[in-house]
Amino acid sequence: MKQQITIVKVGGAVVEDEAQLSQLLHDFTAIQGPKILVHGGGRKATKIAERLGIETKMVDGRRITDADMLEVVTMVYGGLVNKNIVARLQTLGADALGLTGADGNILLSAKRPLKNGIDYGFVGDVKAANGQKIAHFIEAGIIPVIAPLTHDGQGHMLNTNADTMASETAKAMATAGFDVTLIFAFEKPGVLRNPDDDQSVISNITHADFETYKADGTISGGMLPKIENALSAIDAGVERVIITKATAIDGQHGTVITQ
Amino acid sequence: MKQQITIVKVGGAVVEDEAQLSQLLHDFTAIQGPKILVHGGGRKATKIAERLGIETKMVDGRRITDADMLEVVTMVYGGLVNKNIVARLQTLGADALGLTGADGNILLSAKRPLKNGIDYGFVGDVKAANGQKIAHFIEAGIIPVIAPLTHDGQGHMLNTNADTMASETAKAMATAGFDVTLIFAFEKPGVLRNPDDDQSVISNITHADFETYKADGTISGGMLPKIENALSAIDAGVERVIITKATAIDGQHGTVITQ
Repeated sequence: MKQQITIVKVGGAVVEDEAQLSQLLHDFTAIQGPKILVHGGGRKATKIAERLGIETKMVDGRRITDADMLEVVTMVYGGLVNKNIVARLQTLGADALGLTGADGNILLSAKRPLKNGIDYGFVGDVKAANGQKIAHFIEAGIIPVIAPLTHDGQGHMLNTNADTMASETAKAMATAGFDVTLIFAFEKPGVLRNPDDDQSVISNITHADFETYKADGTISGGMLPKIENALSAIDAGVERVIITKATAIDGQHGTVITQ
Repeated sequence: MKQQITIVKVGGAVVEDEAQLSQLLHDFTAIQGPKILVHGGGRKATKIAERLGIETKMVDGRRITDADMLEVVTMVYGGLVNKNIVARLQTLGADALGLTGADGNILLSAKRPLKNGIDYGFVGDVKAANGQKIAHFIEAGIIPVIAPLTHDGQGHMLNTNADTMASETAKAMATAGFDVTLIFAFEKPGVLRNPDDDQSVISNITHADFETYKADGTISGGMLPKIENALSAIDAGVERVIITKATAIDGQHGTVITQ
């Protein structure tokens, strides 16, 4: 029987709000068995950048990362946000270890080429996730806490989307022989049939459902890449992906993505 | 026979200078066997603080760390400086892993009480270093890169002197059964008999020598706590401590501190 592992991805809005973070960390610690936390931190990066006089530019929700912004996200994601989460998890008895893709070479990426004429700057597209190395930490009882940063193998850090970090980590753990549950925790209770109605959670979405919902406009905008990420994880051997509210990460709520 | 390990501590002036850092990382990678790098980063923290409009206050060379400054050092030491070193070591074939005291709970500290009426703020005095945990990383072929931050076990990061981090780590590794060499790398070729003459390196200093040099004024100022740190490491079972120039960390140069 495969060893189970739960990977929870939580965005910046939650980790930067004291009350939400506190509950999230308690709920995360309560998850049985091996687990990994992948976090964002974009709002804090935007605030620190502003204080440093660095303008934040976004295209389709993705941060344009010039050299100055790379310094900011390396500081904020890898330092401020990551270490505060690690220190708090330690108080809950969770033996947390903060990681970026460079640490232990767990996530290697390539600087993104121009896309549709847009230069995203120092942004990394994941090339390889080292599931064996992460498994080694897991076997030692360690709980990895992963910041959305990778490295290019040539000495440079790269800013990397946290959803992608989570799904690539999930795929690598599946390949390493784990039974993987990947939970995307965010502000809504799941994928909604009607974005204005929190009661309209779609309980299950398959590849076929996704095509239908995309065609009829039920699912659109920022939810599209999230579900594409989820489906690509499923296709790569991840057992289940759940999209749910950050206050409901027990695996019993939200939208389940299956093949 | 005990397994050998080398711990190199290098200050901010070196890690923030591209040419010096490059050589240091090459020389560090060339050290045979298990090794640990402990780094500073104070100058970069001062620069970032200044850009954020946060005033840097020092007392006897130690940073007063209020809540704002704690954010800065957590970002700069734990994020910016640490991750850049880790990414660069990875390119040299060194499987580096960035750590603060909170990560894996390797260094626990207590917030410093008022000292001579001075409130140092969020500064930690090390209470416990977990040599067994660090040894586990070492056995996995990992090279820990430690930033000068600890945690208080109650969810807070604390700013901690990098020399102290290095000597406490060295003591813990000695207790864990390693034959430890601790190298303090800085801008001078060693402890100098005449501070204006780089040729006047004192080759060996014992407890008794130190008392003499202190009494006659040969050794004074910032060198005093450095040698006290070194002697406390020796007393706690560290085999040898070497104080040397950052460009000469091969163990053949500098001042050797012995019992």
